Amino acid sequence: MRTRKKKWSAGELENNPRILRNESEYFGRLTEYFNDGKPIHLEIGCGKGRFIIETSRREPDINFVAVERDETILATAARRAEEKAAGSIAFVVADVNDGLEFIKSGEISRLYINFCDPWSRKKKWAKRRLTYDTFLELYEKLKIPEIFFKTDNRVLFESSLESFSRKNWLVKNISLDLHASNFPENIMTEYEEKFSAHGPIYRLEAELR
Amino acid sequence: MRTRKKKWSAGELENNPRILRNESEYFGRLTEYFNDGKPIHLEIGCGKGRFIIETSRREPDINFVAVERDETILATAARRAEEKAAGSIAFVVADVNDGLEFIKSGEISRLYINFCDPWSRKKKWAKRRLTYDTFLELYEKLKIPEIFFKTDNRVLFESSLESFSRKNWLVKNISLDLHASNFPENIMTEYEEKFSAHGPIYRLEAELR
Repeated sequence: MRTRKKKWSAGELENNPRILRNESEYFGRLTEYFNDGKPIHLEIGCGKGRFIIETSRREPDINFVAVERDETILATAARRAEEKAAGSIAFVVADVNDGLEFIKSGEISRLYINFCDPWSRKKKWAKRRLTYDTFLELYEKLKIPEIFFKTDNRVLFESSLESFSRKNWLVKNISLDLHASNFPENIMTEYEEKFSAHGPIYRLEAELR
Repeated sequence: MRTRKKKWSAGELENNPRILRNESEYFGRLTEYFNDGKPIHLEIGCGKGRFIIETSRREPDINFVAVERDETILATAARRAEEKAAGSIAFVVADVNDGLEFIKSGEISRLYINFCDPWSRKKKWAKRRLTYDTFLELYEKLKIPEIFFKTDNRVLFESSLESFSRKNWLVKNISLDLHASNFPENIMTEYEEKFSAHGPIYRLEAELR
């Protein structure tokens, strides 16, 4: 079963035109890759892609880059993008811990972080969170002007608010219970639909000062 | 009944030594009033005083000023302070909308805001919130270095986080569910005990940058 799955995703990874595998094609060259002058929005940790696929369908004037470190999951997302006639999305296998070096400064005009790993079991793991100070510094260095962030993890959201406050980010449109709030345009991730019954979904937008 | 209540509180207001009525005694002279060099912590909207009385008992090295705009409620708080052998608390009838003019800049080293009116029914009322931008500017002007804030009102807490972010305040020790958090030293207000069953209590500390 496991082998068959692997074989399938290997084929997808090689043959799906939405998946960028050849680093020389996109590394530091995303703007040239899309080559149409439209803004580029990035999602780190796209999972099986439900959020980014639906967003791309609603926003035809945006190019999207969906990053996922698990290549089997990314292959699923890319296949679904084909099936669902998604908009302009490029899928990239990458681990953000390696520094997002394929992005040029100023190239990304919005970053989505949806339900990232909360690293909440041990205090010393807090530095691994995608909203920790060092990551916020990286996004700032890459001149990403805004971040849209949501999670169902209370501890992660608390510490994220504190990190944004310590760093150069203005927070706005905060929701401490997204599904109870007046925010009809919300696009749910797979995870969000599954887990929102267990407690509130937290969301914020952060703007580089 | 109403008249008897009024009569009682009138007596309390006149005779309880903890209540500051004579403006010449404390207006701009709180430091001289306490006259012992200890830091002064302020609570705006002390209600019947449970929080400030218990806090004063635990912190004998602090002087407290408890402000309440309803003089009957303030009389109750001051009587309770006597009954419960509270620490050093001065009670002042004042409406913060008049500008906290009895406080000198630099005189208050901590401000408590507990379960203030959320003014959440109409959007245009947001400016009346004690954590709205103009109030945060007032606290900054008075050089109050830290604010401890808690509420059970989601909309108020969301907008407060945004105000602190817009203004010169660093937020820390955020809790989005105080009673579920590891914060054993929490002192509950009357309101908090009564209403915390209905949903989470939100809390933060803000530090003037």
